[in-house]
Amino acid sequence: MTITKNRLEAFSDGVLAIIITIMVLELKVPHEPDLAALIPLLPIFLSYILSFIYIGIYWNNHHHLLHTVIKVSGGILWANLHLLFWLSLFPFVTGWMGENHFALVPTAVYGIILLMAAIAYYILQTTIIRQQGEKSILAKAVGKDLKGKISPILYLAAIALVFINPIISQSLYVLVALLWVIPDKRIERVLFEE
Amino acid sequence: MTITKNRLEAFSDGVLAIIITIMVLELKVPHEPDLAALIPLLPIFLSYILSFIYIGIYWNNHHHLLHTVIKVSGGILWANLHLLFWLSLFPFVTGWMGENHFALVPTAVYGIILLMAAIAYYILQTTIIRQQGEKSILAKAVGKDLKGKISPILYLAAIALVFINPIISQSLYVLVALLWVIPDKRIERVLFEE
Amino acid sequence: MTITKNRLEAFSDGVLAIIITIMVLELKVPHEPDLAALIPLLPIFLSYILSFIYIGIYWNNHHHLLHTVIKVSGGILWANLHLLFWLSLFPFVTGWMGENHFALVPTAVYGIILLMAAIAYYILQTTIIRQQGEKSILAKAVGKDLKGKISPILYLAAIALVFINPIISQSLYVLVALLWVIPDKRIERVLFEE
Amino acid sequence: MTITKNRLEAFSDGVLAIIITIMVLELKVPHEPDLAALIPLLPIFLSYILSFIYIGIYWNNHHHLLHTVIKVSGGILWANLHLLFWLSLFPFVTGWMGENHFALVPTAVYGIILLMAAIAYYILQTTIIRQQGEKSILAKAVGKDLKGKISPILYLAAIALVFINPIISQSLYVLVALLWVIPDKRIERVLFEE
Repeated sequence: MTITKNRLEAFSDGVLAIIITIMVLELKVPHEPDLAALIPLLPIFLSYILSFIYIGIYWNNHHHLLHTVIKVSGGILWANLHLLFWLSLFPFVTGWMGENHFALVPTAVYGIILLMAAIAYYILQTTIIRQQGEKSILAKAVGKDLKGKISPILYLAAIALVFINPIISQSLYVLVALLWVIPDKRIERVLFEE
Repeated sequence: MTITKNRLEAFSDGVLAIIITIMVLELKVPHEPDLAALIPLLPIFLSYILSFIYIGIYWNNHHHLLHTVIKVSGGILWANLHLLFWLSLFPFVTGWMGENHFALVPTAVYGIILLMAAIAYYILQTTIIRQQGEKSILAKAVGKDLKGKISPILYLAAIALVFINPIISQSLYVLVALLWVIPDKRIERVLFEE
Repeated sequence: MTITKNRLEAFSDGVLAIIITIMVLELKVPHEPDLAALIPLLPIFLSYILSFIYIGIYWNNHHHLLHTVIKVSGGILWANLHLLFWLSLFPFVTGWMGENHFALVPTAVYGIILLMAAIAYYILQTTIIRQQGEKSILAKAVGKDLKGKISPILYLAAIALVFINPIISQSLYVLVALLWVIPDKRIERVLFEE
Repeated sequence: MTITKNRLEAFSDGVLAIIITIMVLELKVPHEPDLAALIPLLPIFLSYILSFIYIGIYWNNHHHLLHTVIKVSGGILWANLHLLFWLSLFPFVTGWMGENHFALVPTAVYGIILLMAAIAYYILQTTIIRQQGEKSILAKAVGKDLKGKISPILYLAAIALVFINPIISQSLYVLVALLWVIPDKRIERVLFEE
C-alpha cells in the first residue's frame, strides 16, 4: 500500500510543481528592452514571491502530513484533491492581485483563497487523524495546532480589514507566511525524538 | 518489471497533474479590480470545477486499475496513452463550454470527449484483464462493472438531450461525476478483504 | 546508483509529460459556440494527434533504452538532455504545421525536427552501448536496428519530397509513426527470454 | 527519511522539467508558413538554447548535490526552494533577452538572474555541508570549488561589461555554461573512488 501513498505524493508534487511554475507566466515578457518596462511588473513580481512562498509552505507541510499516512483511503484522496483545487487557483488570484497593484477586491479574494486552502488543509489533516484512530501519530504531533488555528483567523481578519486598508491585509498575509516558513517542528519532534 | 509499471504510473500522473493544472489557465486574469469582473468568469469556473472532479476521478480509478498490473505490455502502454489523449482534450472542451456559457454545441462536444475517455478507459481495463488471464484479480474486482456500463449510456443520453436543453446534459455530467466520486469499493474490497 | 537512473527517468518523464500536454494549448479555444468554429482547428488537431503519437513512441522507446542502463554517466546525461531539447520543439513545429494547414515549409521543418530527434536518440543509444562495453545488453537487443536506420532515411526523403507535394511527406511521417507504434520487440525479447 | 529526500528530488525535478519546457512557449508560433517567419525567432531560439543548457546544468549539479544528503532539514528545504525561485525566472528573462535581440538591459538582467541562482546554489551547498558536519562528504567533494567561485565573478563581469558591449556579456554566459557542461567530476571522484 506504500505505492498508493507514493502515487498520492507524486501526483500532489506534480500539481504543486506546476502551480508554482505557471504562476511565473503572469509575468508577461515586456516588449521594450529597458528597465522602465520592468516597473509595471513589480507588483506582479511581489505577489509572485508571496504566492511562491505559500505554495512552498503547503508543499512542506503536506509532506509532513502524509509522512504519517500508511493507508490512503478514498476520504484522504478526495480531501487531498480538494486541497489541490484551492491551491490551483493561486496563479489566478496572484495574477489578479498583482496586475491591479494590490487593489481592495483582488486583495480580499486572495485572502478568501488562502482561507479556503487553509480549511481544505485542516479537513485533510482531520481525515488522516480520524483514520489513524486514537493512537494517531499525527494527532500527537499536531497537538494543540496553534499555528493551524491562528492562520484562518488572521486570513479572516485580513479579508475584513481590506475595507480599511488593503496594506493591512497584505501585511497579515506576509505575517502568516513568516509564521509557517519555519518547518513544522511539532511533527518533526514527535517523529524523530520518540 | 515493477520499475516499468512505476514509470507508466509516473508518466500518467505527470500528464494528469498537468492537465488538471493548465485547465485553470482558461480562467483569464481580468484587468478590472472589482467583483463585477469575476462574474463573466463564473461559467468557466463552474466548468473548471466539473472537469477538475472528472480528472480526479480518472486519476483515482486509473490508480486502482494499475494496482493489479504486474507486467506492462505494449498493448497496455498504448491503451494508456490512448486514454491520456482524450483526457488531454479536457482543458480545450472545458474552456470552450465555460466561455460560451454552456451553449448547446460545446456542451455536446464536452459529452463526446467524456464518452471517448470512458471508452478509452474501458479498452485499457479490458487490455489489462485479457493479459492477466482467467484468474485476473481485476476482472474479479470489476465484476459486473455497473458504473462502468452506465456512464457511457448516460453520456450518450446527455449528448442526445442537449438538443432539448443543455441543462439536462450538464445535470447528467454532474450525476455521473457524483456516481464516481465514491472510490471504487469493488476493487478495494477484493484486494484487501481476500 | 539506481537512484540516479530513477531521477534521469523521472526528469525525462516530466519533460515528456509536459511536452505532450502543452501541445494541446495550440488548440486555441474558439469564441463561437458552433461546430463551424471547430473546422479551422481540424488541421491543428490532426497535427496534434501525429505529434502525440510521436512523443508516445519516444517515451516508450526511451523507457526500453534506459531499462538496460546501470550507471548514468555525464555523457548519458547530456545525450539525454540533447534528445529532450529536440523533443521540446515539437509543440512549436506541431502548432506551426497545423495552423498553416500542412503548408510546404512548416511540413519540411517538422521533418527536420523529427530527424534531429532521431539523430539525438541514436546518439543516446550509442552512448549507452559504448559505456556498457562489449557485452552490452542493449547492443544485443538493438541488433541491426533496422527501424532505427530506416526512420532517418524516411525523414530525409519526406523533407526532400515536400517540394513535390507536402502530402507525400505527411504520409511518410504517418508511416514512420506506424512502424514504431509496435513496441520494440527486439529489446523485450532479449531482456525477458534469455 | 530517504522518502523525504526522494520527495525533495521529485519536486525539484518537476519544477525544473516545467521550467525547461515552458521556456519554449516564448517561441510564439508564427502565422506565415515561410522560412522568413522563422528569422525574427532566431534570437529567441538562441537564448532558449542557452537557458536550456543552464537549466540542464543546474539539474545535473543539483542531482550530485542531493546525492550526499541523508536527512532533509527545514534549512535545506527552504534553501532548495530559494534556488528554484530564481530558476523559475529563467523563462521570463530568456524571453525578454531573446525578444529584444540581446539588448543591453535584458542582457544585464539575464546575468543578474544567473548570479542570483549561483548564489542560491552556493547557499544550498553550504547548508548541506553545515548539516553534515566536519566529515561532510560533500565538503570533501567540493574541495576548493574553483568553478563555483569563478562563475559568479564571471557573471558580475558580464553584468558590468554589458555597458561596453552586450556581446562580451553573452560570450561570458556561454563560457560559464561550457565550464559546467562537463559533469562535476570532483563529486563523482570522491563518491565512487573512495
